[in-house]
Amino acid sequence: MTQAAQIGDAVSAIDTPALVLDLDAMERNIARMAAFARQHGVRWRPHAKMHKCAALAQRLVAAGAVGACVQKTSEAEALAAAGVQDLYISNEVIAPAKLARVARLARSLQQRGGRLAIAADSHEGVDRLAAALAGAQDAIDVFVEIDVGQGRCGLPPGPEAAQLALRIAAVPALRFAGLQAYHGKAQHLRGADERRSAIAAALQLVRDTLAAFAPAGLAVPLVTGAGTGTMVHEAGSGIYGELQSGSFLFMDAEYAGNQADPAQPVFEHALFVKSQVVSRSARHAVCDAGHKSHAIDSGLPLVHRPDPGDGGGEAPWRYANGGDEHGLLHADDGQALPALGQTVWLIPGHCDPTVNLHDTLVGVRGGLVQGEVAELLRVDARGALT
Amino acid sequence: MTQAAQIGDAVSAIDTPALVLDLDAMERNIARMAAFARQHGVRWRPHAKMHKCAALAQRLVAAGAVGACVQKTSEAEALAAAGVQDLYISNEVIAPAKLARVARLARSLQQRGGRLAIAADSHEGVDRLAAALAGAQDAIDVFVEIDVGQGRCGLPPGPEAAQLALRIAAVPALRFAGLQAYHGKAQHLRGADERRSAIAAALQLVRDTLAAFAPAGLAVPLVTGAGTGTMVHEAGSGIYGELQSGSFLFMDAEYAGNQADPAQPVFEHALFVKSQVVSRSARHAVCDAGHKSHAIDSGLPLVHRPDPGDGGGEAPWRYANGGDEHGLLHADDGQALPALGQTVWLIPGHCDPTVNLHDTLVGVRGGLVQGEVAELLRVDARGALT
Repeated sequence: MTQAAQIGDAVSAIDTPALVLDLDAMERNIARMAAFARQHGVRWRPHAKMHKCAALAQRLVAAGAVGACVQKTSEAEALAAAGVQDLYISNEVIAPAKLARVARLARSLQQRGGRLAIAADSHEGVDRLAAALAGAQDAIDVFVEIDVGQGRCGLPPGPEAAQLALRIAAVPALRFAGLQAYHGKAQHLRGADERRSAIAAALQLVRDTLAAFAPAGLAVPLVTGAGTGTMVHEAGSGIYGELQSGSFLFMDAEYAGNQADPAQPVFEHALFVKSQVVSRSARHAVCDAGHKSHAIDSGLPLVHRPDPGDGGGEAPWRYANGGDEHGLLHADDGQALPALGQTVWLIPGHCDPTVNLHDTLVGVRGGLVQGEVAELLRVDARGALT
Repeated sequence: MTQAAQIGDAVSAIDTPALVLDLDAMERNIARMAAFARQHGVRWRPHAKMHKCAALAQRLVAAGAVGACVQKTSEAEALAAAGVQDLYISNEVIAPAKLARVARLARSLQQRGGRLAIAADSHEGVDRLAAALAGAQDAIDVFVEIDVGQGRCGLPPGPEAAQLALRIAAVPALRFAGLQAYHGKAQHLRGADERRSAIAAALQLVRDTLAAFAPAGLAVPLVTGAGTGTMVHEAGSGIYGELQSGSFLFMDAEYAGNQADPAQPVFEHALFVKSQVVSRSARHAVCDAGHKSHAIDSGLPLVHRPDPGDGGGEAPWRYANGGDEHGLLHADDGQALPALGQTVWLIPGHCDPTVNLHDTLVGVRGGLVQGEVAELLRVDARGALT
């Protein structure tokens, strides 16, 4: 397929629509996250379901991350094939054929000095995992997932989690590694106080679960979870030992809608869709980026106006849904519409599924106005669904 | 990347989540569409923005279609590279670098006996296209797009369209080919009467535009447009000579919500996401297909229960959004939830952007229960955005 850009191209030459990554902004985000984790004495294992890119997973490890989370077996396979060493499937796997792949991948990573971990939330799941790993030379880490408010996977907090952990601990090929406790819904509660309250409730559920482990005589080596919207609370809890936040790397319009928490590092938008006006009438302009180029599950994109003077700002145009291949731009009162052919920069509504629509992240240095293309980053696990 | 299936596999062996195409149902849809077009004496040029698959574009031509529509230059390139001969970019292209690609592709298709057409809705667009094609040996067909209710691209119906057509006709490398007049919004008006009224209004706008051509002394060779939801009206209008309907091939939950029009052929659901329950609690089951495996811009998927006896039906489970990688299944009153490990079949909300999430369509014959994998169809233009 035609690449939207070549290394060395001016930003103005990038074809549209393209997913553009401001590498300078991203690196500032990484530095802030690394400092935050150091300051709180917690490990960080950023979720690669967001960026799906081995080069970025490795860059995060170089900055201090302990490895990467993924949601899918095929994501783990794609990132491992591209060189990532330490992977955790923070999700349940049930199909025997897929568990056989998990076992193969675990062995392959162990043989090269890496590791694979996985989550479970049912006795049947653990039994199937044990069957797939029967006879394995090295045990793999298994986390018990509990539901701390997300309302999706996970056992109810409390004694059931301890019982499942005991079952894991009884299998030679499995090692009980701790609790998977992620409250995804809390990430996007708008008010900082709402997020604090939601995580306070989640922390109590984790404490209840840890208390239920005492009679079982089984230590809980680690509690892992948290996302970009709430990590300030998990990091300061003394309970969570590992943060899975991934979106801090790129940010998106959904996170931009959150009321800021003063204790949280300020992360910058680093991910943009470059688009172009292809049709224009008196009432609106139409750009060439619809929801095949950015995900709209969490809302429509914001329109960004890069400004070399002050670092950028919001453009005076509102994006309205124009379908799969188009976006409609309406001007704020008294403002002119963009001209035919003009470049329009979008901040996607939701970074994770937006990245999954693209094969390449066009990495730019020097800003979106005067900068140039410095890297083409392959989205190694794009479309890795199984 | 690991393929979800191999040819000859039983349907039960297809990995999840996977995009599964019921080839038998699809072929019945093709036969009904071909008969419909013959009966109305109109050409059909199904929109390949939906299936993005060269093999399917060619199968449609074999069944009587005159070629394929696309929305993007890169879609045209991908399908042409995979052997499709007759392509129409039913959309505006403005960037000079992209218009240079249009010119190259047109030449390449002409040299092998094929053709490329394109739409335009501005004088500047036509001038840029003319510049890109300056010196071309063979002229290319250019359609003038008018806005007949979609509210997106296109000139206002009436004399402006005739003026633009005259400009096109004055350029040796361009040939005025007719009007592009697609009312996308009308496709999903729920009531059959609402759709009829919307297209009646669109037809009047086309008639007004045709009347405005008379003083210009320029013939309008073809009016092209229509979609699966309204084509019964355009086909019977005596005005439209070509139908662009694409969704009839696969159908989706969005079209299932339309009140049926008695004059419309009955098209069957042929596109499904096969998923599996990976977590289960008393209140819900969680399947492994979230909105990275099916697009939710037009609503959530329906849950399908294939039944070899009567051809299938709706399952007693409701799908709720579980995020990027998960779906939540709730049971209807008095019905049991699916078990851990059970297969769950989803009818995607919107076929076009769902296909764009997948590299492969797993083509099945013999039904979703007893059938087997007969073809793996490459989604050639997946991610072709530019």
